[in-house]
Amino acid sequence: MNCENMLKLVLLRHGQSLWNEAGRFTGWTDIDLSQKGIEEARNAGRLLCSCGCTFDLAYTSVLKRAIRTLWIVQDEMDLMWIPTVCSWRLNERRYGALVGQSKKEMEERYGAKQVHRWRRGFRDRPPALEERGSRLSSDARYSRLEEDQIPKTESLEDTLNRMLPFWEGNIAPELNKGRRVFIVSHGNTLRALVKHLDAISDDRIEEVEMPTGVPLVYELNDDLVPLDRFYLRDEADCRRMREKAAGR
Amino acid sequence: MNCENMLKLVLLRHGQSLWNEAGRFTGWTDIDLSQKGIEEARNAGRLLCSCGCTFDLAYTSVLKRAIRTLWIVQDEMDLMWIPTVCSWRLNERRYGALVGQSKKEMEERYGAKQVHRWRRGFRDRPPALEERGSRLSSDARYSRLEEDQIPKTESLEDTLNRMLPFWEGNIAPELNKGRRVFIVSHGNTLRALVKHLDAISDDRIEEVEMPTGVPLVYELNDDLVPLDRFYLRDEADCRRMREKAAGR
Repeated sequence: MNCENMLKLVLLRHGQSLWNEAGRFTGWTDIDLSQKGIEEARNAGRLLCSCGCTFDLAYTSVLKRAIRTLWIVQDEMDLMWIPTVCSWRLNERRYGALVGQSKKEMEERYGAKQVHRWRRGFRDRPPALEERGSRLSSDARYSRLEEDQIPKTESLEDTLNRMLPFWEGNIAPELNKGRRVFIVSHGNTLRALVKHLDAISDDRIEEVEMPTGVPLVYELNDDLVPLDRFYLRDEADCRRMREKAAGR
Repeated sequence: MNCENMLKLVLLRHGQSLWNEAGRFTGWTDIDLSQKGIEEARNAGRLLCSCGCTFDLAYTSVLKRAIRTLWIVQDEMDLMWIPTVCSWRLNERRYGALVGQSKKEMEERYGAKQVHRWRRGFRDRPPALEERGSRLSSDARYSRLEEDQIPKTESLEDTLNRMLPFWEGNIAPELNKGRRVFIVSHGNTLRALVKHLDAISDDRIEEVEMPTGVPLVYELNDDLVPLDRFYLRDEADCRRMREKAAGR
């Protein structure tokens, strides 16, 4: 048994990072997993494995908290050999001047309401990062990008707009071929994808949060329209997954 | 500084595996690294890093002892994000009926001379594996191969012949574009590649061994003809590498 048929897409937000743990805005800063994040990734891998799930290929960002989460899951599922693609378009939203700052301090400075709108709203952009040149343009992983492709700050909408070409050009075609796809990405990038898949309104997306390290299984029809979606947290969710995979 | 210019190819045999440690023939059996192998991989990564070396992409087999070695090196070099490609054509030579057997017992049964010819010679094939159907054809990582592409035993020559299309079709074109390439593979597969690159005769290849976990740096001209090659074992080798990279 596996997640074939209509169960061919699983999303996973990386495990807790050291800056998640510290309550700091991270964005494109390349922060590693915390010990808890490593455990979350292992648990996600074990749960997917115990559901009889398998994947044909995997996508992730160019940030190590996502890549390491993917590696840990691949290891747990004995799928280290499957093709994997890292793309900056699956990076976390770039948080502008908030990067490195504590969420608590930013609430004290700007007010909880504004910080909430930056974190959860669709159109609000945090203040832009002042960069002398762009420090990122000297980072080899972004060296092939045009200067104007590297955002100085992003709203959720901006994140959606730069993620979508990768979804439509790379991931959706593989799903259309029947491939079982695993995407390990970031809180806001996955909220953007979920907004797109589930046609969630600009207002309602504010209510959507992605927990770290919990696989989100999508049941998709042939047009990649979601019929159902559920988190895989425990054995009961696994049973639901197996039943769906068996077509019941 | 980096291994640009003519220093754009580094080969690495995976770190010691649990069956290397136990003195057993392994072939395509998916045996993991030993603790010593993990350490060897870490040291290789640190050494490459301390030489100022970097890579644009990496290739490995579909076997976890090679993939894990690559992952450890990527982690040490902060290159987890570079594109990586896993191919069965970079797998270890398939050792036929010797797989799982101890090298010592095989010497007692067949004589040290015969076992040496199987291990080091170019044309000698170990006895074929008797498979009811092919167990490997039910392994997802080989499911796209034709039945006759899965060897029941391989000589070094056979290994060279199935590795070469991948070298010529995938790796060499990237080198020709100026990409800096890292290949993590297996003892015999790398001996086959070295035989090809350095035009070593069928007889002389018997003398070539690849140590586990020691990077082998190639200096190649524009036609991918080797001008020099050396192992990276210590700080003196690093200095040699830096001098070459600087064009001295």
